[in-house]
Amino acid sequence: MLRLLGIDPGLRFTGWGLLESDGNRLRHLADGVIATDSTESVPERLKALHDALALLLAEHRPDEAALEETYVNRNGAATLKLGYARGVALLAPALAGIPVAEYAALAVKRAVVGTGAAEKHQVQDMVRRLLPGARISRADAADALAVAICHAHHRASRTRWAAGALMA
Amino acid sequence: MLRLLGIDPGLRFTGWGLLESDGNRLRHLADGVIATDSTESVPERLKALHDALALLLAEHRPDEAALEETYVNRNGAATLKLGYARGVALLAPALAGIPVAEYAALAVKRAVVGTGAAEKHQVQDMVRRLLPGARISRADAADALAVAICHAHHRASRTRWAAGALMA
Repeated sequence: MLRLLGIDPGLRFTGWGLLESDGNRLRHLADGVIATDSTESVPERLKALHDALALLLAEHRPDEAALEETYVNRNGAATLKLGYARGVALLAPALAGIPVAEYAALAVKRAVVGTGAAEKHQVQDMVRRLLPGARISRADAADALAVAICHAHHRASRTRWAAGALMA
Repeated sequence: MLRLLGIDPGLRFTGWGLLESDGNRLRHLADGVIATDSTESVPERLKALHDALALLLAEHRPDEAALEETYVNRNGAATLKLGYARGVALLAPALAGIPVAEYAALAVKRAVVGTGAAEKHQVQDMVRRLLPGARISRADAADALAVAICHAHHRASRTRWAAGALMA
């Protein structure tokens, strides 16, 4: 049984979602969105994000964390700001001693919908179907859960591969 | 007497420089460069940078910190990576309760050399002249000291202005 945390970082809103995985089965544990106050200074907002992530990690104690790799075809200032939030989201698990994996957007879509050509809303719909009974608060949280699902699938394949290799 | 920390962040090398300022006079206290191991994962490198900055802040206890605003006319992937390092450099003082100021490159050049048209090496030469006797380890550290000098000047102007306003 592994607890996997997906994080979808942003300076304004950071989605997160926590799953339990036993290889084939997934169970939704919790999700949410961390918002920072856009009237505060950037350092204060990064501190708020860091503190919320640190609290989350301490409360839920995930075994591993995962983020989606980011599109960087936006303007420089937006990319830099996203970099601040992503930097903090990569740092917080590292400070807690939790490994962090990163997945390309294509890999997340493939793992959740079955095709890399899926639209964003299809990913979010499928997350809700894969985690029945879960009340997923918001789109940012669904995106974070999608990364966690992707991480669970990749972990499971690696484990099966390793088991097969041992038997061969 | 104020202790001012300048930081010039980067994922590979982060320069830092510490000054003491009594308004008009500046004294060099310390400087250095934090390097991270490019063979390690990004989260581990961000943790190394964070830990080094946290140690620095705890040891030297600056009153305020300052960073130069960043050029973002590079490619997206480089901007994002710089964003990670900058995010961590903005976060560390905030976590320590230390205010962080940001200055445009133009303001730093003007404060140190007297003109915004100065070249990078002119800024570094002038930093060495403004802080005689200091052995400045590297260019990244000189850049960090330049931001600290800029912050000292702007603080001094603000204080003079405030004093003038009180007397008026």
